[in-house]
Amino acid sequence: MRTEKKTEPDAGFPPGVAFIDGDFCDISEARISILDFGFLHSDATYDVVHVWRRRFFRLDRHLDRFLDNVAKLQLALPFDRRTVAQTLTECVRRSGLDDAYVEMICTRGTAPGYSRDPRQANNRFIAFAIPFSWVANEEQRSQGLNLFISTVNRIPSRSVDPTIKNYHWLDFIKGTFEAYEHDAETVVLVDEDANITEGPGFNLFAVSGGRVTTPGQGTIKGITRRTTLELCAELGIEAGEGALSADRLGAADEAFITSTAGGIMAVTRIDGTPLGDGKPGPVTARLTDLYWQKHDDPAWTTPVD
Amino acid sequence: MRTEKKTEPDAGFPPGVAFIDGDFCDISEARISILDFGFLHSDATYDVVHVWRRRFFRLDRHLDRFLDNVAKLQLALPFDRRTVAQTLTECVRRSGLDDAYVEMICTRGTAPGYSRDPRQANNRFIAFAIPFSWVANEEQRSQGLNLFISTVNRIPSRSVDPTIKNYHWLDFIKGTFEAYEHDAETVVLVDEDANITEGPGFNLFAVSGGRVTTPGQGTIKGITRRTTLELCAELGIEAGEGALSADRLGAADEAFITSTAGGIMAVTRIDGTPLGDGKPGPVTARLTDLYWQKHDDPAWTTPVD
Repeated sequence: MRTEKKTEPDAGFPPGVAFIDGDFCDISEARISILDFGFLHSDATYDVVHVWRRRFFRLDRHLDRFLDNVAKLQLALPFDRRTVAQTLTECVRRSGLDDAYVEMICTRGTAPGYSRDPRQANNRFIAFAIPFSWVANEEQRSQGLNLFISTVNRIPSRSVDPTIKNYHWLDFIKGTFEAYEHDAETVVLVDEDANITEGPGFNLFAVSGGRVTTPGQGTIKGITRRTTLELCAELGIEAGEGALSADRLGAADEAFITSTAGGIMAVTRIDGTPLGDGKPGPVTARLTDLYWQKHDDPAWTTPVD
Repeated sequence: MRTEKKTEPDAGFPPGVAFIDGDFCDISEARISILDFGFLHSDATYDVVHVWRRRFFRLDRHLDRFLDNVAKLQLALPFDRRTVAQTLTECVRRSGLDDAYVEMICTRGTAPGYSRDPRQANNRFIAFAIPFSWVANEEQRSQGLNLFISTVNRIPSRSVDPTIKNYHWLDFIKGTFEAYEHDAETVVLVDEDANITEGPGFNLFAVSGGRVTTPGQGTIKGITRRTTLELCAELGIEAGEGALSADRLGAADEAFITSTAGGIMAVTRIDGTPLGDGKPGPVTARLTDLYWQKHDDPAWTTPVD
């Protein structure tokens, strides 16, 4: 045969454990049928919760959102909520990881006779735990991110509800390549009114005159975003939703992004131009400190063991 | 373990052969890593060509478009064009199918250390051949389809270029469920100006006063769509691109959809209301006949053997 060469696109798997089709396996062995409509039509929803020092952070909230989104897409899990939680826990236990990025997925699956009718499909549940992952690396977190504001529009709510966590990322990918061309480290997309929405896997916040603002429309309602608003309340910092134009962000004193993959992370440059004094700001620092303190709080965490 | 029950979401695989990671295998065994960004970010493009009586139909055009789209997404195939064609051919040969639906896919793949940087990823090529598949079943093809016009917006060009064939189908899935709720058989989505764009896997045409019109914006430039415009020219039927509102479609004499998965298929009802006399029209019939005649034409086909 003409294609003798064995390609290895999966070189460099992280350690980790997955659950798929009733079995646990090493993450490197976890594979899904190429006919699953979760792949061929991106007909799927997911959620990501993290484990820090062997405790899940806000697991109930992630489960609430995941189950809501499964229902919104007219998918059905083959397991109940308790079994989902137990399966996530078992992935982490088997992985031996202390700090983990734990994903749960529900795909449309396939239908008998490969019917295109989504009502006939047998939906699939997948879970996996891999090492805790950061949107920003260590250097970026200490210096603050250089953020590019793309003119690519985030897929609008009239097409796909952004509060249903989904894998439609080609808009983010295009924006990410643009950011790299501008020597920026990551990107946020705008809506049709040129207001900022969100970036690949994170929400954005601006701090102006002591007040914290995050876009209220056209974005995922991130669990870390909601947590941040609660931390603001606890610290007596005024905070709320509001439209964020590029100009308004550029004039802010501080900015930061929020994500399960890294928590609260400072933004210090917009397309290379320093924001405020160009250093991570004091409000960002206070919120970041309290965010990580909460990882020991039994009210917000669930032990793996 | 608590999840003893073995789930079988893949029950009912069609026959077929796939090529993945350097090997040919039965379609039921073809699986992709759950960490491939083609799955987790739907960061992929694809194309589908069909084989009819052991001849590919317009293979060169599908290869042209696929290779263009791979480049537009800044992906790179691990094989050249000739090897892609040979691999598709080998999938069909090994499947033994006379009439086949043949898909080629390029995904972002994964990057060493599971980096999120798409520039570092090792892209993956996948191909498969399964039995020829029809957007409309036999009864629907003979009676004509009942089409629902959804208010869901097709993902706009400002977010994702619709001419890059992609797996972002949650808008289509939502529209499909709406169509079923209205007892229709399939759906077309609109743009923000309420003009019709396309349906899940097909383009739409209307025939009014002998003139054939298809939406020019916000849709994939289907190979069957382009073929249909050429067939119109050959038959001396006036045809071109133009905006198609729900009202304009409802007032048409005839309508039809075009897809690699079935060719030219009549639409005879819009949300249950008959179009014209409610029967497949004469222009649709002439085009359909010529479309299938062309499947013996060596200029438009490539033998599998």
